[in-house]
Amino acid sequence: MDRLQRQLSFILEIDKLKSILRQTILINRTRRENSAEHSWHLAVMANLLAEYATEPVDVAKVTRMVLVHDIVEVDAGDTFAYDTVGLASKKDREQQAAERIFGLLPREQGTELRELWEEFEAEQTPEAQFANALDRLEPCLLNANTEGGTWKEHTPSLDKVMERMKPVKLYMPQVWPVVQKIIDGAVASGWVKA
Amino acid sequence: MDRLQRQLSFILEIDKLKSILRQTILINRTRRENSAEHSWHLAVMANLLAEYATEPVDVAKVTRMVLVHDIVEVDAGDTFAYDTVGLASKKDREQQAAERIFGLLPREQGTELRELWEEFEAEQTPEAQFANALDRLEPCLLNANTEGGTWKEHTPSLDKVMERMKPVKLYMPQVWPVVQKIIDGAVASGWVKA
Repeated sequence: MDRLQRQLSFILEIDKLKSILRQTILINRTRRENSAEHSWHLAVMANLLAEYATEPVDVAKVTRMVLVHDIVEVDAGDTFAYDTVGLASKKDREQQAAERIFGLLPREQGTELRELWEEFEAEQTPEAQFANALDRLEPCLLNANTEGGTWKEHTPSLDKVMERMKPVKLYMPQVWPVVQKIIDGAVASGWVKA
Repeated sequence: MDRLQRQLSFILEIDKLKSILRQTILINRTRRENSAEHSWHLAVMANLLAEYATEPVDVAKVTRMVLVHDIVEVDAGDTFAYDTVGLASKKDREQQAAERIFGLLPREQGTELRELWEEFEAEQTPEAQFANALDRLEPCLLNANTEGGTWKEHTPSLDKVMERMKPVKLYMPQVWPVVQKIIDGAVASGWVKA
């Protein structure tokens, strides 16, 4: 029963991810997206877009990876892509969060999820690279369908946006033309600074 | 490109699931849960609790199944478990929704997701039975951690709650004592009518 109690305490704990708000705005523009529903969206996308990954990927592993990739935000919060100050402390805050939250689970399950998260962050394996590409593609699609979304709000430079979107270019090259077109439109609309 | 466009149009369409509200209340009680984040929660749970399934299950398949099990609600809405009128028309409304929404995808992908959803609904395979048990367990855990949650609001009879929770008893018997204890507490608190 202790094992089950640990599993249930983790399951209850991650309910908090539903209240971690990202910058991204939902397509119906009613509110910002939270990290739990964002993770769900990536998991569905992983199963539909795996054919575009540059290297063959284990789709089930990518799915598990994107399901847990934001769980550390329960403690560390969501750090916006263009928030330089927040990004500086992000690694430390997230490591501490991983320690505590994955530590709620029975050891081998906690280790497995933590390793999946670290693999995602390191962006070295085909699965992590594809997962990172999805993680950049989704908010880009939402921005494109909310008249600029977070771009319009923050007007980042084209350099920064191109850097941010690089995983799509590198790891889903066949999808890149769609993103390039979205970015061109965003520059033309003044949401992204050329 | 037509194939990719169909995949992207489906991906954009299902963003609406983030705005389909269920009756269940989040543990921090700030609002009702939506069906996208609920699906994410079940997908994580599937990966942690598979050891309790009565029959061995393909966890990757259960994960895909719970990720898509509520997508028809984009058109059909969420039908509350104890809403007798809504339940009568649920099947028809959801079949039409499945036709339209999964029909956005390239044929073989749409068919695969639709079949997963139909398998979930039929509750005949070990994967579908385990997925249904998870789908009952999650709101039960949330009710238990929100002072009765939807039970307190609707005070269903003990018979109805037991019937609703049956998949947990049948397909995750080792987890059932936890649910039984939660239900006993709900009756003692007057949230469920004995």
